[in-house]
Order: sequence, then structure tokens, then C-alpha cells
Amino acid sequence: MKVKPLGDRILVVRIEDAEVKKGGIIIPDTAKEKPMQAKVIEVGLGKRNEDGKLIPFEVKKGDTVLIGKYAGTEVTIADKEHLILREEDVLAVIS
Amino acid sequence: MKVKPLGDRILVVRIEDAEVKKGGIIIPDTAKEKPMQAKVIEVGLGKRNEDGKLIPFEVKKGDTVLIGKYAGTEVTIADKEHLILREEDVLAVIS
Amino acid sequence: MKVKPLGDRILVVRIEDAEVKKGGIIIPDTAKEKPMQAKVIEVGLGKRNEDGKLIPFEVKKGDTVLIGKYAGTEVTIADKEHLILREEDVLAVIS
Amino acid sequence: MKVKPLGDRILVVRIEDAEVKKGGIIIPDTAKEKPMQAKVIEVGLGKRNEDGKLIPFEVKKGDTVLIGKYAGTEVTIADKEHLILREEDVLAVIS
Amino acid sequence: MKVKPLGDRILVVRIEDAEVKKGGIIIPDTAKEKPMQAKVIEVGLGKRNEDGKLIPFEVKKGDTVLIGKYAGTEVTIADKEHLILREEDVLAVIS
Amino acid sequence: MKVKPLGDRILVVRIEDAEVKKGGIIIPDTAKEKPMQAKVIEVGLGKRNEDGKLIPFEVKKGDTVLIGKYAGTEVTIADKEHLILREEDVLAVIS
Amino acid sequence: MKVKPLGDRILVVRIEDAEVKKGGIIIPDTAKEKPMQAKVIEVGLGKRNEDGKLIPFEVKKGDTVLIGKYAGTEVTIADKEHLILREEDVLAVIS
Repeated sequence: MKVKPLGDRILVVRIEDAEVKKGGIIIPDTAKEKPMQAKVIEVGLGKRNEDGKLIPFEVKKGDTVLIGKYAGTEVTIADKEHLILREEDVLAVIS
Repeated sequence: MKVKPLGDRILVVRIEDAEVKKGGIIIPDTAKEKPMQAKVIEVGLGKRNEDGKLIPFEVKKGDTVLIGKYAGTEVTIADKEHLILREEDVLAVIS
Repeated sequence: MKVKPLGDRILVVRIEDAEVKKGGIIIPDTAKEKPMQAKVIEVGLGKRNEDGKLIPFEVKKGDTVLIGKYAGTEVTIADKEHLILREEDVLAVIS
Repeated sequence: MKVKPLGDRILVVRIEDAEVKKGGIIIPDTAKEKPMQAKVIEVGLGKRNEDGKLIPFEVKKGDTVLIGKYAGTEVTIADKEHLILREEDVLAVIS
Repeated sequence: MKVKPLGDRILVVRIEDAEVKKGGIIIPDTAKEKPMQAKVIEVGLGKRNEDGKLIPFEVKKGDTVLIGKYAGTEVTIADKEHLILREEDVLAVIS
Repeated sequence: MKVKPLGDRILVVRIEDAEVKKGGIIIPDTAKEKPMQAKVIEVGLGKRNEDGKLIPFEVKKGDTVLIGKYAGTEVTIADKEHLILREEDVLAVIS
Repeated sequence: MKVKPLGDRILVVRIEDAEVKKGGIIIPDTAKEKPMQAKVIEVGLGKRNEDGKLIPFEVKKGDTVLIGKYAGTEVTIADKEHLILREEDVLAVIS
């Protein structure tokens, strides 16, 4: 079973803070408004411009991204919380 | 009798949670704001750009899609609840 | 006497629920927010794009359409209630 | 003395209900939100697109039009009430 | 000393009602929302489109124009009240 | 040390009313909503259109301009109050 | 570890007031709404226009910039506060 986001949307799964701390970027629990890290599971085809041409994505499957705390829509896939959001809600790629 | 959605609209029928659970994606009843699954019954001609050219659809008749809980307009066809919504309100295609 | 809608507007007359039921699509009186059926009496020239070119209509005179409950402006022509609305307020064509 | 509306504006004078009734379209006094009929006295040059090109008008001097009750700006010319409004506020041409 | 409006702005000076009455268009003091007449003192270079091209003005220095009561920004030049407003806030040219 | 405004922004310093009066345009202290005069200290590169092309500025370094009372963001440079604002917030150039 | 901002976003780190004062631009603590200085740590690829073409940045890695007090989203990288913001929220480059 596969969930393919539509258009310029991507599907991500949140990376827990414990893992985040190991990775070097610390986002304390008390800072509720701060962005969170997530792993990109799947990307859509891209955004279509006025002529129907697809604008390429900057993020790709497997990327670790920084996203706004309240971006996207939650969806449960195989008992695990995921998020579907637009690429423009991704703040940065962490590598 | 046929209901043909206009422009970039699609006609869908909701997939009940019982069926959803069998399919592997669990959306519990308590999570009211979560997206729901639906089956695409009919699609419009597509969105026209400024020159009148039609932009192709990503979803097609028969697709199972994930849509926002409050997207679209309800309409009863042959005693069954349907929804007419714009393609941009579809979050993902499930295959 | 003829009423010619301007631009991308159309002139419709509502189809009563009694007729609707015979036609197979039931929209009960209690569901106030649901769309209603209407017959297209006249269409405008179409929407002009930035270059003045006319974008073709999808609906045509004689079509039965599904429109939002609160779409358009009411106008009485020859003692009969009509509605003038934009084509983008038409949800679907019923055939 | 001449009042030439600017751009995509037109100058109209309201047609009284008494005259309206003779003409066959009845808009009773109690329906305050309904559109009213008006005669087009003068039209502007038209709307300019991004390149400065003029998009042609659909209404012309002498037309009888249907306009929203609250559209436009009132102006008194030679002791008579007139309205200046944009062509997009004209719902239909009556012929 | 010269005040050159920027872009699609124009500089006007209001024409007093006394003068207005002589000119034949009567706008009584009690009608506060009605447009007022003004004389165009200076115009800007024009509005630039996306490519930087200037779109020509319809009004010119010396024109008598009809403008909305609350359009523009007041500025005192040589002890006399003036208004700077955008050309799109001009309703009509009176000739 | 130099402060270079970004894009279509300009850096100005307010001209005091005392100086303003000498210059012939009187803006009394009681009229809080009226525009104020300012001297252009630095301009940005210009506004980029959709293709990345720069649209030329109308104001230049050294110009005296009329700006809205509440336009821009205040910044202190070398103990002196400055304002950074967009060129579209400039009402007129005074020469 | 590297944080690469997406699209037309940049990553900056705030410059403390003590350093600011040495640099000659004084922004007192009492002026809460005034812009603050920051150092550009990383920039994105740029803004894509409708055709997918990248519009070049005006700011570059290492620049000192003036940004609005409340612009951007805070993120902690290696125990140090950073900000991710769009280039259009940068008021000026200081050199």
C-alpha cells in the first residue's frame, strides 16, 4: 500500500526528539512554536505552473527536513502518524 | 443519469471506516479533523489556464483518495451521499 | 424580451424538488445547505482572459446543473424567479 | 457638458419601476436586494490589460442593463441621479 | 517648486461647490458620500507593467475629474489643499 | 559603513518641519495624518519582475520625496533616525 | 551537519547589541519594534518564477543584514539560536 501525495505535497514522518538530540540540533520540549524535524517518505509530482508544466521539487525521498510545528495534515498509515504538507511549508533540508 | 463535475472538480463517495480498517490505514472515530478516504466516481474536464488550455488531472475515475474532512459540497445521488470537491482539495492518492 | 448575462455569467431557473425527485436525485427539504438543481436558460459570451480572448463555456443553454444554495443573484423575469450566477459557481452538469 | 467614465467604468441612469413593469420584468419594491434596470448613458475606453491593450466592452451606449442594487457610485448630473460603475458589476443586458 | 506624483498617481486640487454649481453638475453638501470634482494639476509617469513598460494615462494635466470623496492623501502646497491619488480612483473626466 | 536597501526599498531621512516651511510646502504639526518630506539617502537595486529583470526606480539618491506618515520601518544609523520603505510608498518627488 | 534553507529562504544568526554598537549602528533596547542586525549563515537556491527559473539572491553568505524584529522562524542549531526567514523580509545589507 502506497500513499502518493498530490501536486506539490509531500508525505513525512516526524523524527522524535531523542533522535534529534543525537543528530546535534536540539529543540527543547518547552519551545512549542519551534520547527520540528521530519523524514520525507514520499513526494508528489510537483507544482504545475499556468501552462501545466511541472516545477521541480527541492526535497526528495529520504531527506531530513525542518518543518513548521503546525504545518500539514495528520494521517495515520500502518499505525504510525504521518503528515502531508506542501513543499513551501518546508523551511530547510538538513544534511 | 450522470453527474459530470465542472472544471477542476471531482465527484467522490466516502469509504466507510470499516472498509478503511481492512485496507490498512486506520483513522479512528475520535480523530475528527483527520482526512478521510474516498473513491473517485467522476472527474471534470480539468482546470483551464489563462489561455483556455486544460491542465491535466492527477486523479482519475476509480482512484482511492485522501481528502480533508470538511472539503467539498455534499450531494445525494440515488439515495447515496456524494461529495463534489476541487482536485486541489485532494491530499493524496492511495494505491 | 431577452436577458443576456454578461461575461462568464449564466441565467438559470430553479427546478422544483417535486421534479427533482422524479428525476432520481433526492435533496430533502431539511438539508438547507445542499446544492440545488437548475435549468440553464441563457449563457454569456464567456470569460475574457488578459488578452481579451474568450474562454469557452462548459455549460450550455438547456443543461441541467447543480449549483450552490446561495450562489447568484435573484431576478424576476415574467413573474418567474431566475438566478444570474457565474459559471464557476456551477458544481456539475446532470445528464 | 459630458461625463466620460474612466477605464472599464460606465455611466448609467436608473429606470423607474413604473417603466420596468411596462417592459415586462417586475421587480417589486419589497425585494430590496434584487438588481435594478438602468440605461447606459456613456461607457469608458475599456479595461487595459498588463500590456496596455484595451479589452472591448460588452455593453454599449443605449443598452438596458441589469445591475446590483448597491453597485457603483451615485453622481448628480443636470439635477438627475446617475451611477458610475464598473462593467463587471453589470449582470446582464436586456434586449 | 514642483510636486511630481510617482507612478500612476496624480495631483489634483478640489473645485469648490460654488464653482461646481455654475458648471452645471450639482453635488449638494448633504450628500457626503458623493464624488467631488477636481482639477488635475500634475500626473505621474504612469503605471509600470511586469516588464517595466509604462501604461499610458487616460487623464491629463488640466482635466476636470470626478473622484471619490475619500480617495487619496491630502497635502498642503503653497497654503492650498491638494490631493495625491491613484488614477484608478478617478471615476470620470468631465469635459 | 553603508546601508544598502534590498530590492525596491529606499533609505530616507526625514526633513524637519522648520526646513519644510522654508521650502514652501507647509505641513502643520496638528495634521498628523498628512504626508511628510524626506531626503533619499540610498536606493535598492529595484523590483524584480517574474523573469528576474529589474524594473527601474523613479526616485534617486538626493531626491526630496513626500511619503505617508506611517510608511516604512525606523532604523537608527549613526545616532540619526532613518526610514527604510518601499518605493511604492513614495507619493511624489519634490523638485 | 548543514541546514540548507529551502527556496528563497535564508538562515541567519543574530548579532548582539554590544557588537552592534561597536559597528556604529545603535539600536537601543527600549526600541522593541526596530529592526535588528544579523549575519547570513546560509542561503537557499532562490525563488522560482512561474517557469521554474531561479531568481538570483541579493544577499549572500557572510553578509550583515537588517531584518524585521519579528521576521522568520527560530531554530536552535548546535545550542545557538538561528532564524530562517525569506529574503523579502531582509530590509537592507550593511557593508
